[in-house]
Amino acid sequence: VQVTIWAGVSVSLDGFMTGLDDRVGNPLGTGGERLHRWLFEPAAIPRPNRDLLDNAFSEVGAVVMGGRMFDLGLEPWGGTNPFNLPVFVVTHRENEPLVNGDDPPMTFVTDGFDSALAMARTTAGAKDVLIAGGASMYETALRTGVLDEIRIALIPVILGGGRPLFDPPVLAGQEFEPLRVNDQPDATHIEYRVIRP
Amino acid sequence: VQVTIWAGVSVSLDGFMTGLDDRVGNPLGTGGERLHRWLFEPAAIPRPNRDLLDNAFSEVGAVVMGGRMFDLGLEPWGGTNPFNLPVFVVTHRENEPLVNGDDPPMTFVTDGFDSALAMARTTAGAKDVLIAGGASMYETALRTGVLDEIRIALIPVILGGGRPLFDPPVLAGQEFEPLRVNDQPDATHIEYRVIRP
Repeated sequence: VQVTIWAGVSVSLDGFMTGLDDRVGNPLGTGGERLHRWLFEPAAIPRPNRDLLDNAFSEVGAVVMGGRMFDLGLEPWGGTNPFNLPVFVVTHRENEPLVNGDDPPMTFVTDGFDSALAMARTTAGAKDVLIAGGASMYETALRTGVLDEIRIALIPVILGGGRPLFDPPVLAGQEFEPLRVNDQPDATHIEYRVIRP
Repeated sequence: VQVTIWAGVSVSLDGFMTGLDDRVGNPLGTGGERLHRWLFEPAAIPRPNRDLLDNAFSEVGAVVMGGRMFDLGLEPWGGTNPFNLPVFVVTHRENEPLVNGDDPPMTFVTDGFDSALAMARTTAGAKDVLIAGGASMYETALRTGVLDEIRIALIPVILGGGRPLFDPPVLAGQEFEPLRVNDQPDATHIEYRVIRP
């Protein structure tokens, strides 16, 4: 079975994945919610976007998430797991797993990204692992050579500032191969294979 | 006749149109030549790219270029007009038009972008006008509301630094509508309509 470790992210045309000043209470930064509109607006998600998401997530068995994303996201997610999948959160804080009703658990992993990824792989079995973010998780996954694909939703807007998708000094020269493109009116979805040296 | 004013640019996945330290002698910045490989490499340009270029340029009647792009480009262009089209260069320096053999002239315009664009429009007649760059030309064209389309070749590489395509503070919130996508192995070509407020 070929298991894919992939990162999914929405990026502005000028390369930002959040707006400026992202923090608890303003989790996507100033203007950053624009990047996720294709997911959540209008109230009924358009069929092409829903299909894209369903197809992508149907192959996923577990999720790895950074501690910062968890801290910023928990409030807008209503204190619950935003994925209908087991999530492993890379954090420095010891916590019991977060379980709400029938939601799959969010498990806190304090010994680093590699450990969280190993747990996610075991849980996923023959299914894929999604690296959900944030920036430091993408960077770590790329830098340590475990990332197979990055799937970008390129949003047709200039955000004007914020958190860049990639940390330039570390990753300069990294090449990708475009695998598939799906052009929708509200986003251009591009799946890239990570080229390993 | 519908005349289109469009900007064409190659951009890295992290949003840069040149590498760091772009200057005379290093016109595309460190690593920046990677962004133009789809145009110039291998020695025989692949057919899909050649067709893309031919189709785009067959509709163009004149080009507007910034003075900095001219200064940096002249040496790599061998001291000649790199386009087989009349070019209007926005500059502060008075110069006679540059004419080499049968090349269309490069005319130097000292009273600003608007004036150069007006001259390019007149020369182009019923054909399109290409804003060839650099960054300040794109920004001026967007900011002054004259740009109809921007056609991006998204190159699957992290450049890690350089000159961003857009000047964030000026253009934050600018929206685009994807018109056409042409996915090639070495670049994802996306044509955007500029949304006017």
